[in-house]
Amino acid sequence: MSLERVLVRSLADRVDGTVRLCGWVEGVSEEGDTQVLLLRDPTGTARLLHPADGDEALAREIKGLRRESAVVAIGTVRLADHGPGIAGPDVVLAGLEVVGPAHAEVPIDDASPLDERLDWRFLDLRRPRNRLIFDVQTTVEAAMRAVWREEGFVELHSPKLRPTPNKSGSELFSVGYFGRKAYLAQSPQFYKQMAMASGLDRVFEIGPVFRANPLVTSRHDTEFTSVDVEMSWIESHDDVMAFEERWLQRVLGAVHATHGPAIARQFGVDVVVPGTPFPRVHMAEAHEILATAGHRVTGKKEGDLDATGERLVAEHVARELGHEFVFVTDYPEEIRPFYHMRAADDPARTRSFDLLWKGLEVTTGAQREHRPDRLAAQAQARGVPLGPIGYYLDFFRYGCPPHGGFGLGLTRFLMSLLGVDDVRVVTYLHRGPRRITP
Amino acid sequence: MSLERVLVRSLADRVDGTVRLCGWVEGVSEEGDTQVLLLRDPTGTARLLHPADGDEALAREIKGLRRESAVVAIGTVRLADHGPGIAGPDVVLAGLEVVGPAHAEVPIDDASPLDERLDWRFLDLRRPRNRLIFDVQTTVEAAMRAVWREEGFVELHSPKLRPTPNKSGSELFSVGYFGRKAYLAQSPQFYKQMAMASGLDRVFEIGPVFRANPLVTSRHDTEFTSVDVEMSWIESHDDVMAFEERWLQRVLGAVHATHGPAIARQFGVDVVVPGTPFPRVHMAEAHEILATAGHRVTGKKEGDLDATGERLVAEHVARELGHEFVFVTDYPEEIRPFYHMRAADDPARTRSFDLLWKGLEVTTGAQREHRPDRLAAQAQARGVPLGPIGYYLDFFRYGCPPHGGFGLGLTRFLMSLLGVDDVRVVTYLHRGPRRITP
Repeated sequence: MSLERVLVRSLADRVDGTVRLCGWVEGVSEEGDTQVLLLRDPTGTARLLHPADGDEALAREIKGLRRESAVVAIGTVRLADHGPGIAGPDVVLAGLEVVGPAHAEVPIDDASPLDERLDWRFLDLRRPRNRLIFDVQTTVEAAMRAVWREEGFVELHSPKLRPTPNKSGSELFSVGYFGRKAYLAQSPQFYKQMAMASGLDRVFEIGPVFRANPLVTSRHDTEFTSVDVEMSWIESHDDVMAFEERWLQRVLGAVHATHGPAIARQFGVDVVVPGTPFPRVHMAEAHEILATAGHRVTGKKEGDLDATGERLVAEHVARELGHEFVFVTDYPEEIRPFYHMRAADDPARTRSFDLLWKGLEVTTGAQREHRPDRLAAQAQARGVPLGPIGYYLDFFRYGCPPHGGFGLGLTRFLMSLLGVDDVRVVTYLHRGPRRITP
Repeated sequence: MSLERVLVRSLADRVDGTVRLCGWVEGVSEEGDTQVLLLRDPTGTARLLHPADGDEALAREIKGLRRESAVVAIGTVRLADHGPGIAGPDVVLAGLEVVGPAHAEVPIDDASPLDERLDWRFLDLRRPRNRLIFDVQTTVEAAMRAVWREEGFVELHSPKLRPTPNKSGSELFSVGYFGRKAYLAQSPQFYKQMAMASGLDRVFEIGPVFRANPLVTSRHDTEFTSVDVEMSWIESHDDVMAFEERWLQRVLGAVHATHGPAIARQFGVDVVVPGTPFPRVHMAEAHEILATAGHRVTGKKEGDLDATGERLVAEHVARELGHEFVFVTDYPEEIRPFYHMRAADDPARTRSFDLLWKGLEVTTGAQREHRPDRLAAQAQARGVPLGPIGYYLDFFRYGCPPHGGFGLGLTRFLMSLLGVDDVRVVTYLHRGPRRITP
């Protein structure tokens, strides 16, 4: 067994060579006098052949194999001609070891409802389509970090155990903490801003956040991976958007180069590398677009966009400018957190933006208010008690530069990227009000 | 203000040019007829000069500056000769904007006790020595990920909300979860093993873990960043050690190249790039070393090593082999988790290891038991009830390859690397039984 492992996708480079393959049994059949074992590894599925007049013990072993058993196979690579549509080469088996037998039949298949597949998520993830999601996620994060690294960002790991809520107190999980209460972070917002007061200048964090939201929908979860960026010495939220667009261009360039054909095959989606700058639409302009389209925003505060509104604005931009992305800017202050900076010429507007991708909101960003008196006043005006956020207000009293940033939900991003409409599909293990297993 | 920002370390490349600097006021003084402002940014401290017969308003602005205010300065770079020990160049000020004034004097200094500095962590982090810690952490993680990427590892984000404890139930934080209880993950162990059953083959995760340990020491925290690796298709724990040693060699190579001189200056530590393979010491041999040294292990179970024992084994290896690292292998099964695989020739020993670095344990690793019947028997023998871990045992029933991995505490690693003896110093925001703020 000292042969180096060969991946299925590399078999074509090894014709006539002896190889060791590691993978799962997709099925066993007989073609004339030959046993055919389909072996799947992370890179593809290979046909492993054993002639009927070959080794008897091996023939029995193959015959007795249960589907999805984990096996190590040794054999010789042989160019094959299966006719159009079926790729060679085959592997003529010399030996087989069942290193992880399946002790029972797999309880789900591709037709099983999502909830059952989530019960057996570790089996569901064996499907090549699902595997691809996590290969893409890995590429996405690596490309994000490459840009951060080139531009001198510092990696942050902010604590998820917090002394106080950072929102209104709703959607908050509490933890028993040595005789007191702690809370799970809903976002690293306060602590990434602390990094700006600490002189770290530009930071990023990829980590879990928690929302005790009781809604059970295809878009909600109680725990997800948040991608956070904060940067100092900016002039306005324009600098934040300028960073985000060149960063996403790089990220999608990497995804396109690495997984473009596989994504087209598995998800039917073309990965488009976006041009920069991304279109920007002022909120007032967004509402003009909706008025022209005859859409009235419902179920939202005055001045906000609803999901249909976001879709219509994105469609307008796609039609007029041929771009999948659009920054909607200058949100009214009532619908933004108290710490968003107000526009200098109109305190009713904020220096903020959302980024829509194919009509789905993937990012919220802003310049932050770094002047402690104004920040405290904005909190009070919103009814946020100053006592519990005193430690946060302190960050701005000892010399804090102007700064801003954004947060991006990693699974939301993957949903847009792959055209998947359910967050549970693109999450390794979904957490929701009714799901905390496996 | 449309000039591009220049960092202090790049001033020497800009002699006679006009630059924009962004940073914090370290102090203001007068040298003869010249005002001297020391400006600190993440890359160093520069002298900004303003002649007394210069602009009056600017002179008043400089005079009134409070230390640690955040400023943007524009000026001309001028080669200077300050005599030995002081580097040029200087910057002759043309303009200054106080973008984030300090509203009060900074309440701590280098002599403040650690606990006070942790109260004001955002100010403590402005010290160049502390800043360096997080630059090093960023480099460490980037180098780790570079190796993972080259070797085809998939990035994992496993849920931190768990349905059941994964240890004995001690040191566990519980969370109210929609009318039931959830628990915070003490490690991603079960879920990174799930990835092996999912066919992801090789995974890594860098994320938070939680331990409700009531001890208040310089080595304990209730939340820290764990670096986790799991890999399939291994023959034994030797394959895991072989990965870890080549990985750490690359990581320390990157740290040495990027931060070697700065770490020597700030921490008095030489970063040594380790040769491979790392020395391996069988646990039986470790106890012979201790017997020869006349050390009796105390406060630990039979067959284990205490902190002094780990130090003595490491010193022995350093003396005999000139290596900072040593793998101690084949731990007795009683002191290892139930899921560590037993040695084929001796069920009292496990296919496991710890990695000691300069005498400090930084890693625990093992081949895992992937045969479900043995795994269940080992759990039962340890008194672990099978019901709550049924979902975990299922991972191994449908074809799971042999696998193993390790966990590494990121802050422990930084402690060894920088020769720091307190985990609170190398953590962005420490969490302990008595500390959950800021």
